Amino acid sequence: MKLENLVGERFRERPSDCALDSHALMIRGGYMKHVANGIYSSFMPLRRITRKIEGIIREEMDAIGGQEVQFPVVLPASLWMESGRYASVGRELARFKDRNDSPLVLGMTHEEAAVHLVREYAQNHAKYPFMIYQIQTKFRDEARPRGGLIRVREFTMKDAYSFHTSQEDLERYYQRCFRAYERIFARVGIPEVIAVSSDSGMMGGDLSHEFMLLTPVGEDSIAICPKCGYRANVEAAACVVRNDREEAGGELTPVHTPGCHSIADVCAFLGVPASRSCKTVVYQKNRTGEYVVLFIRGDLDANETKLANFLGEEIHPADITPECGLCAGYIGPYGLGGNHTLLFDRSLEHARGLCCGANREGYHYIGLDVARDLGAPGYFDFAKIAQGFACPACGQSAIRISRGIEVGNIFQLGTKYARAMNLQYLDDKGAYRHPVMGCYGIGVGRLAASVCEARRDEYGPIWPISIAPWQVHLCCVRADREEVKQRADSLYEALLRNGVEVVYDDRRVSAGVMFSDADLIGVPVRAIVSPRGIGGGRVEICTRDKSVSMEVPFDGALDEIMKMIARLTGLCRAAD
Amino acid sequence: MKLENLVGERFRERPSDCALDSHALMIRGGYMKHVANGIYSSFMPLRRITRKIEGIIREEMDAIGGQEVQFPVVLPASLWMESGRYASVGRELARFKDRNDSPLVLGMTHEEAAVHLVREYAQNHAKYPFMIYQIQTKFRDEARPRGGLIRVREFTMKDAYSFHTSQEDLERYYQRCFRAYERIFARVGIPEVIAVSSDSGMMGGDLSHEFMLLTPVGEDSIAICPKCGYRANVEAAACVVRNDREEAGGELTPVHTPGCHSIADVCAFLGVPASRSCKTVVYQKNRTGEYVVLFIRGDLDANETKLANFLGEEIHPADITPECGLCAGYIGPYGLGGNHTLLFDRSLEHARGLCCGANREGYHYIGLDVARDLGAPGYFDFAKIAQGFACPACGQSAIRISRGIEVGNIFQLGTKYARAMNLQYLDDKGAYRHPVMGCYGIGVGRLAASVCEARRDEYGPIWPISIAPWQVHLCCVRADREEVKQRADSLYEALLRNGVEVVYDDRRVSAGVMFSDADLIGVPVRAIVSPRGIGGGRVEICTRDKSVSMEVPFDGALDEIMKMIARLTGLCRAAD
Repeated sequence: MKLENLVGERFRERPSDCALDSHALMIRGGYMKHVANGIYSSFMPLRRITRKIEGIIREEMDAIGGQEVQFPVVLPASLWMESGRYASVGRELARFKDRNDSPLVLGMTHEEAAVHLVREYAQNHAKYPFMIYQIQTKFRDEARPRGGLIRVREFTMKDAYSFHTSQEDLERYYQRCFRAYERIFARVGIPEVIAVSSDSGMMGGDLSHEFMLLTPVGEDSIAICPKCGYRANVEAAACVVRNDREEAGGELTPVHTPGCHSIADVCAFLGVPASRSCKTVVYQKNRTGEYVVLFIRGDLDANETKLANFLGEEIHPADITPECGLCAGYIGPYGLGGNHTLLFDRSLEHARGLCCGANREGYHYIGLDVARDLGAPGYFDFAKIAQGFACPACGQSAIRISRGIEVGNIFQLGTKYARAMNLQYLDDKGAYRHPVMGCYGIGVGRLAASVCEARRDEYGPIWPISIAPWQVHLCCVRADREEVKQRADSLYEALLRNGVEVVYDDRRVSAGVMFSDADLIGVPVRAIVSPRGIGGGRVEICTRDKSVSMEVPFDGALDEIMKMIARLTGLCRAAD
Repeated sequence: MKLENLVGERFRERPSDCALDSHALMIRGGYMKHVANGIYSSFMPLRRITRKIEGIIREEMDAIGGQEVQFPVVLPASLWMESGRYASVGRELARFKDRNDSPLVLGMTHEEAAVHLVREYAQNHAKYPFMIYQIQTKFRDEARPRGGLIRVREFTMKDAYSFHTSQEDLERYYQRCFRAYERIFARVGIPEVIAVSSDSGMMGGDLSHEFMLLTPVGEDSIAICPKCGYRANVEAAACVVRNDREEAGGELTPVHTPGCHSIADVCAFLGVPASRSCKTVVYQKNRTGEYVVLFIRGDLDANETKLANFLGEEIHPADITPECGLCAGYIGPYGLGGNHTLLFDRSLEHARGLCCGANREGYHYIGLDVARDLGAPGYFDFAKIAQGFACPACGQSAIRISRGIEVGNIFQLGTKYARAMNLQYLDDKGAYRHPVMGCYGIGVGRLAASVCEARRDEYGPIWPISIAPWQVHLCCVRADREEVKQRADSLYEALLRNGVEVVYDDRRVSAGVMFSDADLIGVPVRAIVSPRGIGGGRVEICTRDKSVSMEVPFDGALDEIMKMIARLTGLCRAAD
């Protein structure tokens, strides 16, 4: 391919609306173009990258017995009604009606479609286990698309669904898929991806993992214990807090706290640490608007994901109206009227001597003893783990919080979808049972962007050879000189004859323009034919990451390039 | 792949709702499953077929310099407003709103997205010509999906867009693409596909061709002249009719024609042939409901496509209400009041002595002389060509009408989209000009179904080896006998080692079940290891189309199979 003919513009200036470097580089390098909020078109270099990623994913899915199928992008709403998600999933599910007024949705995940496809096939235990997967476009109407391909509304995803007759069999397969994912991330050139325990969210399963590329620009927070190796998404990490029952208690006493509307105000006013307060956080259920009042120790933050999972529905921070009966800024657990849902975080268990709102403008209580003053409310974990907290696994106060991009996820779904959609099989004793399912996702575009985020320098991406748009970038500096052009042409032909994927820049532009374009395209091996080199009968060969640079005799250039391709290819191999 | 593990059900009974054999076979063979009206999921065999078709298309598009890109499935309505098609295209364009109430559409074709993608790149004449293509999901809300994958609502399509600085350059590229299409159809195993001139329809171009697989079950009608080779879709074929001015004329005279509501009634009542009548056909514009009254010689049918093209908007057969001023059953061109659009087919030019409606209940005129009685109305071609009509190219009355399935199309678009969306480039004289475009489509699923329609017998599809889900179907008859099983296993292993795509049936089922399943899966080469064959040290090898069947010594089986694969592969080669 001649670079001259490559459709797409490359430019120097960083676009002002790109927060992430990978996003800026993929715009500057002519990889993609913004079409609408969270919707992009891909130019040829990105399409070549995503096709190679798809190829690697396909090989690894086939290697664990996956069967490639294809589900529709447009699904009848009836399938999502069967599973219950038509009602439970929010506005991220795009809904519309066809010309006959039948309700349709755009698939954002395909559990329903997978169950539908195998409903007849999977009626006998002898058919199990099996796994089907597809690589297909999905649409999720995200409220806040961001970071280029990191969080978009339309994306290509590999989604796989496995079906089993026992939890043990699912777990065995889950482990196989886990290892296939490790191989995939190694093969696309980011073996440093780690698996963390995750929240199952709207998938509604039992156990799940996310595969994370750690990077300060990631949008997920991950709790890692360097002592024992515990790793979990902060959304899912249990928060362990203990109160010392020996702390001073005291009587429940109202105090006048004029103008103290936040827990920080009150603690400052009273001269106590935030850990000696009971904070109130109020949400509303999305569906009904009903108020949910959470009490939590003042030094902790609420984990909305845990709260939503506990309630089984989506919530949002409350709008506290005059009519709702809540006294904004002074809400507390003692003497709170109304029919709101009241929840107590585990951090309040055994706590006493706390300050809290008195449900009266300008007043707080001191001396709250939760067990004594409120009976024995149920305590659950609604708190967000933070830096230095106790590890839920080993108990040492060593938790570190890192940021990461989720590049893949695997879920154990249990029988949720099989039950809801009445998928049953006859077991070997003649009884009807629901199969257990697993599901396994990888976003192709996000993975490409993540590799770019992890493998780049200030000049552009450094694509691993396994997914690079081309293997070799051949530059002909001073193509106007006949001998140089002839040499470069002959090397181009030789590379093509040897099946090398090569992009050839023989434009009559300066070496500076040529090299900065090559940096943006990020091809791992570069060969430079120039008047200076040709004068000495030599060709310059280097890697995009600048780690290797050599001059070789012209006649040996092809061999040297083939060796370099082989070496770089070896670096993109999975460990096992 | 063991057949035992293949997800999907095969069965004997023809589903009652399948009009086409290809549809019935693809349901019976476990290729696909109905999800909603015109929406299907694909099982693994079909996905393998479509991936191979996609691979062949990709190679041929790359070979003519195409660059693979990817456009979104979901597009902002604003792009379709720019081109004007948001208003002009009917309900087949699925429209919906996102969470922020922004209007979106599902891409049913991507001219707008293609222009959007290259708008910055294509500003200088030196960048031309170029072609971009994608293979992507589309959604078209068809009123009447039918025939399985022949006419669906969601489909995978290869759509390509070329950009040129002159009509001549477009025409050169159009010819290259034309030949690439011929190679594609030859390589997927249906070289008999022919190109016919077609109507440009909503694409709005100048010249276009459809590639047709002729079959009685096709939904398109094609006019073919065996004398000169003229071929056109009936929608697009010019209709040539001449009237003999020497025919008897006469005075325009009203006659009482009680109860004669159709042209057939009137002609029978008056004892004249239909060709001596002026028929009235009434439509309404979809957008405004305005009436369009077409007059045409009574022996001809109206061609709605020509009419819609002439009007520049969509129409439907009229609902003639009492208020509209039209006298249903008695409408004629003479003395017709109201503000309707009146159109005259060319078949009325020079016609006289015709009968026609008198716009009065129970009355017709005889003796109509269109030129004399109606001034000189403009005549245009609105008639449908039919069997035996004059060929628009050579003039001989030899036209034959055949049915066909459209498996691909190519359009010369002119500057329609460039103008509407203001795509301009600076030419070599420093002037701004609009590029001319071509577009080129192939529906992947429809092509798979068309091959099935053309290559099948009563037992199942006979897939050409280039697109078959597997190359070899290995049957182990009586897998319960150890020696047979061992022999079959070792042949299976040998085939896999040689890179052959093989599906292996070692189920403990009867030979009858095994062979009928193999027929449904349609793999071109079959190898049968059975007790009888093994007794004689032999393996049976045959082709799915039954043209070749032989017994070979076990040790020579692998060689013989490889030879057969090579021979069948040779049959799927393009001519040039």
